[in-house]
Amino acid sequence: MTQKLIRSKNKKKGLPPGALVYVGKNKENPVSIDVFEYNEENYIEKKGVLIEECFSPIQENSVRWININGVHDTAVIEKIGAFFQIHSLVLEDILNTDQRPKVEEYENFIFIILKMIYHYKKAMRIEQVGLILGKNFVLSFQEEEGDVFDPIRERIRQNKGKVRKMKADYLAYALLDSIVDNYFPVLENMGERIEETEDEVIHQFKKETVREIYRLRREIIFFRKSIWPLREVTSTLERTDSNLLSESFFLYLKDIRDHIIEGIDHLDSFRDMLASLFDIYLSSLSNKMNEVMKFLAIISTIFIPLTFLAGIYGMNLKMPEVQFEWFYPQFFWGIILLVVLIMVLFFKKKKWF
Amino acid sequence: MTQKLIRSKNKKKGLPPGALVYVGKNKENPVSIDVFEYNEENYIEKKGVLIEECFSPIQENSVRWININGVHDTAVIEKIGAFFQIHSLVLEDILNTDQRPKVEEYENFIFIILKMIYHYKKAMRIEQVGLILGKNFVLSFQEEEGDVFDPIRERIRQNKGKVRKMKADYLAYALLDSIVDNYFPVLENMGERIEETEDEVIHQFKKETVREIYRLRREIIFFRKSIWPLREVTSTLERTDSNLLSESFFLYLKDIRDHIIEGIDHLDSFRDMLASLFDIYLSSLSNKMNEVMKFLAIISTIFIPLTFLAGIYGMNLKMPEVQFEWFYPQFFWGIILLVVLIMVLFFKKKKWF
Amino acid sequence: MTQKLIRSKNKKKGLPPGALVYVGKNKENPVSIDVFEYNEENYIEKKGVLIEECFSPIQENSVRWININGVHDTAVIEKIGAFFQIHSLVLEDILNTDQRPKVEEYENFIFIILKMIYHYKKAMRIEQVGLILGKNFVLSFQEEEGDVFDPIRERIRQNKGKVRKMKADYLAYALLDSIVDNYFPVLENMGERIEETEDEVIHQFKKETVREIYRLRREIIFFRKSIWPLREVTSTLERTDSNLLSESFFLYLKDIRDHIIEGIDHLDSFRDMLASLFDIYLSSLSNKMNEVMKFLAIISTIFIPLTFLAGIYGMNLKMPEVQFEWFYPQFFWGIILLVVLIMVLFFKKKKWF
Amino acid sequence: MTQKLIRSKNKKKGLPPGALVYVGKNKENPVSIDVFEYNEENYIEKKGVLIEECFSPIQENSVRWININGVHDTAVIEKIGAFFQIHSLVLEDILNTDQRPKVEEYENFIFIILKMIYHYKKAMRIEQVGLILGKNFVLSFQEEEGDVFDPIRERIRQNKGKVRKMKADYLAYALLDSIVDNYFPVLENMGERIEETEDEVIHQFKKETVREIYRLRREIIFFRKSIWPLREVTSTLERTDSNLLSESFFLYLKDIRDHIIEGIDHLDSFRDMLASLFDIYLSSLSNKMNEVMKFLAIISTIFIPLTFLAGIYGMNLKMPEVQFEWFYPQFFWGIILLVVLIMVLFFKKKKWF
Amino acid sequence: MTQKLIRSKNKKKGLPPGALVYVGKNKENPVSIDVFEYNEENYIEKKGVLIEECFSPIQENSVRWININGVHDTAVIEKIGAFFQIHSLVLEDILNTDQRPKVEEYENFIFIILKMIYHYKKAMRIEQVGLILGKNFVLSFQEEEGDVFDPIRERIRQNKGKVRKMKADYLAYALLDSIVDNYFPVLENMGERIEETEDEVIHQFKKETVREIYRLRREIIFFRKSIWPLREVTSTLERTDSNLLSESFFLYLKDIRDHIIEGIDHLDSFRDMLASLFDIYLSSLSNKMNEVMKFLAIISTIFIPLTFLAGIYGMNLKMPEVQFEWFYPQFFWGIILLVVLIMVLFFKKKKWF
Repeated sequence: MTQKLIRSKNKKKGLPPGALVYVGKNKENPVSIDVFEYNEENYIEKKGVLIEECFSPIQENSVRWININGVHDTAVIEKIGAFFQIHSLVLEDILNTDQRPKVEEYENFIFIILKMIYHYKKAMRIEQVGLILGKNFVLSFQEEEGDVFDPIRERIRQNKGKVRKMKADYLAYALLDSIVDNYFPVLENMGERIEETEDEVIHQFKKETVREIYRLRREIIFFRKSIWPLREVTSTLERTDSNLLSESFFLYLKDIRDHIIEGIDHLDSFRDMLASLFDIYLSSLSNKMNEVMKFLAIISTIFIPLTFLAGIYGMNLKMPEVQFEWFYPQFFWGIILLVVLIMVLFFKKKKWF
Repeated sequence: MTQKLIRSKNKKKGLPPGALVYVGKNKENPVSIDVFEYNEENYIEKKGVLIEECFSPIQENSVRWININGVHDTAVIEKIGAFFQIHSLVLEDILNTDQRPKVEEYENFIFIILKMIYHYKKAMRIEQVGLILGKNFVLSFQEEEGDVFDPIRERIRQNKGKVRKMKADYLAYALLDSIVDNYFPVLENMGERIEETEDEVIHQFKKETVREIYRLRREIIFFRKSIWPLREVTSTLERTDSNLLSESFFLYLKDIRDHIIEGIDHLDSFRDMLASLFDIYLSSLSNKMNEVMKFLAIISTIFIPLTFLAGIYGMNLKMPEVQFEWFYPQFFWGIILLVVLIMVLFFKKKKWF
Repeated sequence: MTQKLIRSKNKKKGLPPGALVYVGKNKENPVSIDVFEYNEENYIEKKGVLIEECFSPIQENSVRWININGVHDTAVIEKIGAFFQIHSLVLEDILNTDQRPKVEEYENFIFIILKMIYHYKKAMRIEQVGLILGKNFVLSFQEEEGDVFDPIRERIRQNKGKVRKMKADYLAYALLDSIVDNYFPVLENMGERIEETEDEVIHQFKKETVREIYRLRREIIFFRKSIWPLREVTSTLERTDSNLLSESFFLYLKDIRDHIIEGIDHLDSFRDMLASLFDIYLSSLSNKMNEVMKFLAIISTIFIPLTFLAGIYGMNLKMPEVQFEWFYPQFFWGIILLVVLIMVLFFKKKKWF
Repeated sequence: MTQKLIRSKNKKKGLPPGALVYVGKNKENPVSIDVFEYNEENYIEKKGVLIEECFSPIQENSVRWININGVHDTAVIEKIGAFFQIHSLVLEDILNTDQRPKVEEYENFIFIILKMIYHYKKAMRIEQVGLILGKNFVLSFQEEEGDVFDPIRERIRQNKGKVRKMKADYLAYALLDSIVDNYFPVLENMGERIEETEDEVIHQFKKETVREIYRLRREIIFFRKSIWPLREVTSTLERTDSNLLSESFFLYLKDIRDHIIEGIDHLDSFRDMLASLFDIYLSSLSNKMNEVMKFLAIISTIFIPLTFLAGIYGMNLKMPEVQFEWFYPQFFWGIILLVVLIMVLFFKKKKWF
Repeated sequence: MTQKLIRSKNKKKGLPPGALVYVGKNKENPVSIDVFEYNEENYIEKKGVLIEECFSPIQENSVRWININGVHDTAVIEKIGAFFQIHSLVLEDILNTDQRPKVEEYENFIFIILKMIYHYKKAMRIEQVGLILGKNFVLSFQEEEGDVFDPIRERIRQNKGKVRKMKADYLAYALLDSIVDNYFPVLENMGERIEETEDEVIHQFKKETVREIYRLRREIIFFRKSIWPLREVTSTLERTDSNLLSESFFLYLKDIRDHIIEGIDHLDSFRDMLASLFDIYLSSLSNKMNEVMKFLAIISTIFIPLTFLAGIYGMNLKMPEVQFEWFYPQFFWGIILLVVLIMVLFFKKKKWF
């Protein structure tokens, strides 16, 4: 099943603003929470904890990363909001999984919404991720349990790269970076499918091609809708003077922005190519029809006059000419061959062959 | 009946600017007026009052909300204008129900025009709402009596949420928010209809589909026209330094703006999808035609030569070959089968089957 | 006759800049000039005066409005230019009736060019209007004598509205306002014609529809070309700090700007709807063709094999099977009915009915 | 022959920047140079001079205008560059006749590149003109000898207009103005051809129409490419604070800018109209086809069943019904008439007539 | 083989930012390095050196140009990064050969990414070039060994032009200039192919034309994607206040920017022309079909009624009229000629011939 075009907000209708209602598919499995706490020397990893366990005081010089898989349990979200002093409108945005990507700066934290995009069972899926970056903690909210952040977990465990040496802002950057990097396998998949479609449109002719073109166009529309606002997100972040962000963060941010623009560039050229491909498809449909028509016209044009001729001599009339010995087959077939010859020459001249 | 593309302003022609003329369908039912007056402790609700009853002095620390259902009675509007000292151009805008959404800041009040959008008997309807936010009062002008503001009324009655604790600007925000929130059920309805259309275009083939595509496109055009100027409205409000607006208003305003942009994003992706769908529809029309033509060509191509052959031997000529015993049925049917076979192989090669 | 796409400037070719040449159709009827002079107490109205009569000194506290119908008499324009000290480039612009709408601020006057749009004998006509607003006078230049300004004349005569109480800038505003207000009947006419076209495209099928679509598109192109630059005109006027404009002028200007943007919004949605309508028209052309083809294919497919069968038994061959008693009509017609039945079932399955 | 889409720069490949190479068609006729030197009192005109003759000192209060027809002789250009101290990149731009219109301000001169557009033997031709405006001289570089500047020459000779009274900047303006004014005859020609095409598309049907549409579209693309950058040129000039430009120049510049924008407006509406016209053309192609198909279907549908009927009674079978006296012609022709009648009614109902 | 739409970044997935991974086709031939070191007096050229040989101290007043052909050996890149103190994100960008053109200013160097475009075996190829401009060195990274920079090498060797007299920034400019200049032969090739296509579409009719149109469109999409961001690159460079750039660099930069905009202008007009050409192609497809259909309709319409007539008189019925002497051939052929005549006149009137 492909994703819904728009998620129902029926449950929210008429409620006061800031009321916490989960907007998405109902789910049964409980929200699962993972916690990492690390500094340069050591790290603690806990899986499947209760939300209350995340509220212990954070050790000095340490960064705590709380990853919440599933945002359908409003109680959990509410408790987090209360502990970390997060405005109810922010919590509302986290629960509203149809939110547009954006960044908002608050006094004690920065709040970022963006989309994770991946292929699942041949269909593109878009999942919302919320990030809250505080002084020494990062909260990440995912709709479903996923493995996108696994490489970062591994880097923390093995103290690879800079992540353990840096502050919370670097972790936030690493999470953003891994989400944006994950756009590219999807783009590559699209690129390959477009190349296959190109091949089909130009060299063979399949009726299914048009459906694949449609599917690709649809995916591009939704991908673009998810990635386009990220330009604004990065430029807002660049102009931020929050003391939560160190100088190196901005350097890395530029790298993310480059990737986002690269992704949009790819989507735009994909879109243009699909438009071209569809034009070619339409014209080859017309060509196909032309061919069929020409063939029908040739056959008809040759045999209809001949059948008329045969009809004439099938009449029960006294036709004086039929009595001559040479009339059939010499004369009759001669005429027929002549007619065929003239027609063939005519079609050759018209370049119908 | 769908809505008129544009409302006649004939009645206004040649009148001096600021002249109060109602631009809309003539109505017979009288204008109905509801009044709420509340503060944190208690509230008074009056229904179906005369306009003069609204002009009593407002109690200190209280907010008065006057909701006027119907703007076709210019006398009522004039009286309100006189009492609250509202510029005649503003009153003119309230009566001109084809007004573009906008916000205007005056010395003693802020004037907002926006559109309420809902589905009524399967057709999208657009209704104009005018809001005037003063120091301790809010005037709301609706074209028809509706239930969009009912949840807010309920919240006032039951002192739910913050509305009773806040000033008039919060009430104005709540009204705006409830109008914008009401866009989403309409968008959802559109989304579902597009998904159905998608299904029809790709999997079945119905001639009615094209009408539904047209209807959706039309609705998107008018929805977009109503919602697009709201971006400007919110950004104008954001830059306002009126002392009628408290700080928290701007925080809530950002939330409304996010919803508006989300709505526009949805409309844009709907529009793009419908364009794609229409392309697919056109190509499947062509495909359909191709199929019919191919079928006709196959039948004709097989039987026309055969009929000619039958015609030949129906001639009243002395044909020497017909005298042989083996000529019919062995030889004749043999030739016919041969012709059919060759044709079938030819079509197979051309991939016409 | 519809309007020319572009007016010939041949007469101007090679002349020095500022040379006064009328660019438009040649006309025979002389230029007619009307003058109004008014203040709060009284007014003088003169019709069909000579231009020289307009050059008397204007009474203190009075406003003089000189309306020139017809700009084809360069002598008149030159005299006006000389008396009111108007730059020759301005006079050139007044004569060049293909000028783009614009506003220009000079030391002693403000010069505005805009377009009057109306329907005349079912064709849209665009006429240029030039306005010159001085300290205590307004000059208005029309291409043809018209009745657009009549309501303003009436208001001056009867001292209705504010016009007699205000300065020249209010008169200029009133003239602008009446021109812009006159756009709306044209827009309404378009709206109605689009609704009719909509009806024709969706419910019936007329070949003439496409011409009406074209005519509407054409009118929208030219309407938009005339109205679009007015946005710039109003925003330039808003930023003007000329002492010819009083504060209330800017308030009224905002109202005009709102109307202009409303007009552009209407035109844009009209354009989008016509694009959609044309798509539907094209697809119903295709549908029509499909239907004809299907019908032809059905008839052919049923009768061509049958005719072949009849041809077979019309052959002058010794066919052993024809000798049986039951061959005709039982067997023969049985086969024919069978063939028809199979075909009908086949078409049913293909959904060709 | 139409113009090349792009001129070959092969000759320039690999050369250091600033190397002077002529990019254009090779020409044989030598470069011809005309010189004017004038002040308010008198003027000197020399034709076909050698370039060295232009290097005499310019008299005080005089303006020298050197017009170079043909830029294919790099030696001439080099000498001019050396004498007037012109940067080699500027000289390169003059020789590169595929240059984009632009303006560049240097210390001692202003350099302007723009395009002259005219019709020659029914094809639009674009020619580059380079202008260098110095303190008391103007250099103009044309690709071919032309008569566009003749009116200016005449004005200088006869001391008409202001040209003899003004400085070099007025001459530069006059040259610019005459080039821009020359766009309008081309636009008028286009406008007329579009009107003819309009007529052809709507009232008659010619296969050649589509080629004319294509030619017009092509011309618009190249015209627009030549004229569009001039907006930037004028706005750059407007912001210039070079002391080579007097105050009145800016007033005149505004006039040129208005003409350029008017030209672009015309091109844009032409483009939109051609798009509409092409749509109508396509739909009338479809209509045409529909008509042919309907006609074929009607003829076939009427005669195919009748032919079958005739075939039946041409069979050599014992058909009991044929023995009755009344069978032919009464009964047989009766059936045939009935069939025709039913078909005709059917087509009437389907509105195929 | 045409180029991949997008290069796989699979190898990079999950790695920390700044990790050096080559993104491109795997290659076997080793990276080849050329070094030039020159000043005004003399120069040293070394080919196929090891990277370590490039790390000797650079002589005063000399410029060292290190050209690295092939970026698939991360070890080489790492060593260069370590020696010249280049940020790991820059090195990552050099290896990521799908990078968007950009410029980045660092403390001790300026980093530029752009695309080299050329035709190779009739297919357009895009290759990434990275440039690092330091105080007295320039590093250039190419994907493949090429001859684009050969003219610059020759100029250095022969001390032609200014390159030996100038600093490293001039060398960087010369490299940029030679890459941008190399766009024009590709554009010319496109221009010629479009002209050929134009000819084919208008004067003949080939089915292959549509593939060439597609190929050209595709090339334009990718060319534009490569060249468009260069506008931003040049404007960023223009605003740079790095002391690595001398004043003359900015003058030359303007020249490059002009070329880039010229290139984009060409691409845009190519794109518009191809869109027009495709429209014409589609309409001539329709025209073709119309012709075939008309021909078929004419033949059918003439012979089908005649065949019916022949069928009538082939019936084995007692037809009284056939007994008259004059019935055949006079009367019968008379009717047939009459029918043909009427049909021909009808088609003439319909302008089907």
